[in-house]
Amino acid sequence: MNFGIIGYIVGVVMTIEGAAMLLPWIVSLIYGESSGISFLVCAIISGAIGLLITRRKPKNTAFFAREGFVMVSLSWIVISLIGAIPFVVSGEIPNVVDALFEIVSGFTTTGSSILTDVESLSKCMLFWRSFSHWIGGMGVLVFILAILPMAGGQNIYLMKAESTGPSVGKLVPKVQKTAFWLYGIYTAMTLMQLVLLLIGKVPVFDAFCLAFGTAGTGGFGVLGDSFVSYSAFAQNATIVFMLLFGVNFNFYFFILSRRYKNALAMEDVRWYFIIYIISSAIITINLIFSGMFNGLREVLFQTSSVMTSTGFASADFNLWPSLSRALMIMLMFVGACGGSTGGGMKVTRYVIYAKTVAKEIRQLAHPRSVKILKMDGKPIEHEVIRIVNVYLCTFILVFAASLIIILTDNFDLTTSFTAVAATLNNIGPGLNMVGPTGSFAEFSMLSKVVFIFDMLAGRLEIFPMIMILLPSTWRKAG
Amino acid sequence: MNFGIIGYIVGVVMTIEGAAMLLPWIVSLIYGESSGISFLVCAIISGAIGLLITRRKPKNTAFFAREGFVMVSLSWIVISLIGAIPFVVSGEIPNVVDALFEIVSGFTTTGSSILTDVESLSKCMLFWRSFSHWIGGMGVLVFILAILPMAGGQNIYLMKAESTGPSVGKLVPKVQKTAFWLYGIYTAMTLMQLVLLLIGKVPVFDAFCLAFGTAGTGGFGVLGDSFVSYSAFAQNATIVFMLLFGVNFNFYFFILSRRYKNALAMEDVRWYFIIYIISSAIITINLIFSGMFNGLREVLFQTSSVMTSTGFASADFNLWPSLSRALMIMLMFVGACGGSTGGGMKVTRYVIYAKTVAKEIRQLAHPRSVKILKMDGKPIEHEVIRIVNVYLCTFILVFAASLIIILTDNFDLTTSFTAVAATLNNIGPGLNMVGPTGSFAEFSMLSKVVFIFDMLAGRLEIFPMIMILLPSTWRKAG
Repeated sequence: MNFGIIGYIVGVVMTIEGAAMLLPWIVSLIYGESSGISFLVCAIISGAIGLLITRRKPKNTAFFAREGFVMVSLSWIVISLIGAIPFVVSGEIPNVVDALFEIVSGFTTTGSSILTDVESLSKCMLFWRSFSHWIGGMGVLVFILAILPMAGGQNIYLMKAESTGPSVGKLVPKVQKTAFWLYGIYTAMTLMQLVLLLIGKVPVFDAFCLAFGTAGTGGFGVLGDSFVSYSAFAQNATIVFMLLFGVNFNFYFFILSRRYKNALAMEDVRWYFIIYIISSAIITINLIFSGMFNGLREVLFQTSSVMTSTGFASADFNLWPSLSRALMIMLMFVGACGGSTGGGMKVTRYVIYAKTVAKEIRQLAHPRSVKILKMDGKPIEHEVIRIVNVYLCTFILVFAASLIIILTDNFDLTTSFTAVAATLNNIGPGLNMVGPTGSFAEFSMLSKVVFIFDMLAGRLEIFPMIMILLPSTWRKAG
Repeated sequence: MNFGIIGYIVGVVMTIEGAAMLLPWIVSLIYGESSGISFLVCAIISGAIGLLITRRKPKNTAFFAREGFVMVSLSWIVISLIGAIPFVVSGEIPNVVDALFEIVSGFTTTGSSILTDVESLSKCMLFWRSFSHWIGGMGVLVFILAILPMAGGQNIYLMKAESTGPSVGKLVPKVQKTAFWLYGIYTAMTLMQLVLLLIGKVPVFDAFCLAFGTAGTGGFGVLGDSFVSYSAFAQNATIVFMLLFGVNFNFYFFILSRRYKNALAMEDVRWYFIIYIISSAIITINLIFSGMFNGLREVLFQTSSVMTSTGFASADFNLWPSLSRALMIMLMFVGACGGSTGGGMKVTRYVIYAKTVAKEIRQLAHPRSVKILKMDGKPIEHEVIRIVNVYLCTFILVFAASLIIILTDNFDLTTSFTAVAATLNNIGPGLNMVGPTGSFAEFSMLSKVVFIFDMLAGRLEIFPMIMILLPSTWRKAG
């Protein structure tokens, strides 16, 4: 294990977080909030330690999957630990585990909250919560990829661990260039969403926070009723941008480089929209028959919010009939496209699962036919299929283990099941107690620690978080 | 497609069912029930048609996976259609779909029921219900394998489709011999259970029905309260025999042929007991802490009943606290060993999943290490791993599709979820409305048809049932 390079990168991350924490401090100055001073102190300390660590570059810059995974996990854990401090020292979220839950939920772009009264938080804290979505959304490591001049193909491991989902085909050969591209698209889209929200008469402060939450597919709001009280225009704009941030970013890259054919050939993007439209249609029909239909916008907002794992709410889908509620749970597991800021298992994986099943059944019926699985016109490597299958098994194992622990709190099955689903898929709200109007406050400390692990595991594609738990990972040799 | 051989075998199955239906007719004679005449009529018609079909052997006896799958599916559908007739014509279950549900539940050894008052049924009908478990348990095709003198290795496809779960290693080279062996063990164990029930003061009629239900891991009872009112001795004996019928039958074969080393090397059998003990322990602790503990027998009975997919109940586990309820649901998905009469996904598959995940994580940490997956000391073929993974995906797809349809009935999520789990895993009862004291009566006809499909799909390892739905299967060529 190359501890030198891992330490160095954690240092870079701390420096960046130090810089990022100056923003909520500035917000506190604007609104004259005294609690903002904690951000300045944290920023200085985090930045100083970070700069101290990164003063000297490690000689050995080689690192492999193992180092990549540990680095990613540690980076997320470190920024969360530092990011939670202002909540605790300001006394706004006095409990350490609660504060950690909240900021992990932020950086993992989950949006689940232990707050029962969001509006009691000061503006700078609300800003920091939402800003952590934006930082987490594209991944702190995109910053690192864009900033750190580390040559060599090993960087691809970072991208694999970071950019979510199995990405078939590579973007620009140079990862760094890719990172700049992604960062540019991400920022431009955030700005567009911000402008639209302002046009939609959303207050400036809210517009910033909501744009951050949309971009990172996070879901933290600034009002107790999430999106209910914003204008129809703002809601419509958010529907569109939630969907756009759930699209595989390779798509935008292809569009910008005028490779329209490649863009249109992306099967996961196509299925992403097909699944979205079909489930919205079923829910619409179900609501009409149950006499609970309040217009298409309500349906489209909730479905895009859950499918992209954002978690904003313009209506309480916990009150919907069973079929619609179940479809919302299923959409949580579907998630957005791989290569997006969204969570869930990713449409990309499901496309591969469906193709594998179809191929197998065809082969049972016609043993002599041999067919190679293709995606976007290119053959899918066996390696990818294997990893995608193992991912499913691992996901189920982590899910079941989490659920068993959560259930010791003795809340009802739907609450417990959807609470794990909402955190492991980085959605935000679930059903019943953890529904759009509820919170995670009531859970025991043990359960909250499990949720923290699940949010991190979900965001980091599970394996990195499991690896740092294994003693063998920390052995020098191997 | 070799339609000749498929028709021939369906004919054999009909002949056997004709013979089997004479037993409930004899029961009706003993108890002087007039409704029993329908069994005699059905027996004669079924037997006559069967003999007519099988009068001439088909010239071409070659068949492959596709024929095997279609044959298995068709056999189960045909015996169910015929087996449902007495219920309908006697007027005891007048609705055709209900009658079909009940008998499919019998032949698939599920044990789910649409009856709200079991005790109102006549003895011959109760006997037929339970006897269908016994026939279904080991599979009508074991009869066929033991009776039909069809040479050649193609028979293995039948075994693959029939004997549940991936069986690593083959038993006796000759499939027919194997069938005789399995049939012998099955009958001997049923008789032992019968004797123990009689010693436990269970009435003779009940003892027969319950022994059939235990052997097939079915779960139909003859009393409204299932097992509650039987003696402690009878319950204890049933705990042991439910567990024994959930063991991989290869284990017994090894024991009988004095290959004790091979028997003890069977990892799925080991894990089957480990999972059983651990979940029973957790539930015991959970019940003690909730003040609902009524002795160890209650826990052990429910866990072995659900894990082996039998579905008898000596207590209403629907009233247990959330953690225990959730563990019961998980045990439904775990199921018994492959190569047993039990349902569920099978411990055997989970052992393979766990090994795959462990291997993958090890490989991510140490890319240079290459390890071959082994089970029972022998390498697992890639083919097996692939099929097992595809099985999981297919299972989830069928589960999700079924759940969406069921939910249009608008029952609560737990009822709907566990109803699908209980049928697709061939368990019997679920939770809430379909709990041990409830029934499937309230569901719509559409939902019942879905359950019928799920019970068949679960019993036949899913693929055969999907294949008969595909138009391409029915094309002559290919």
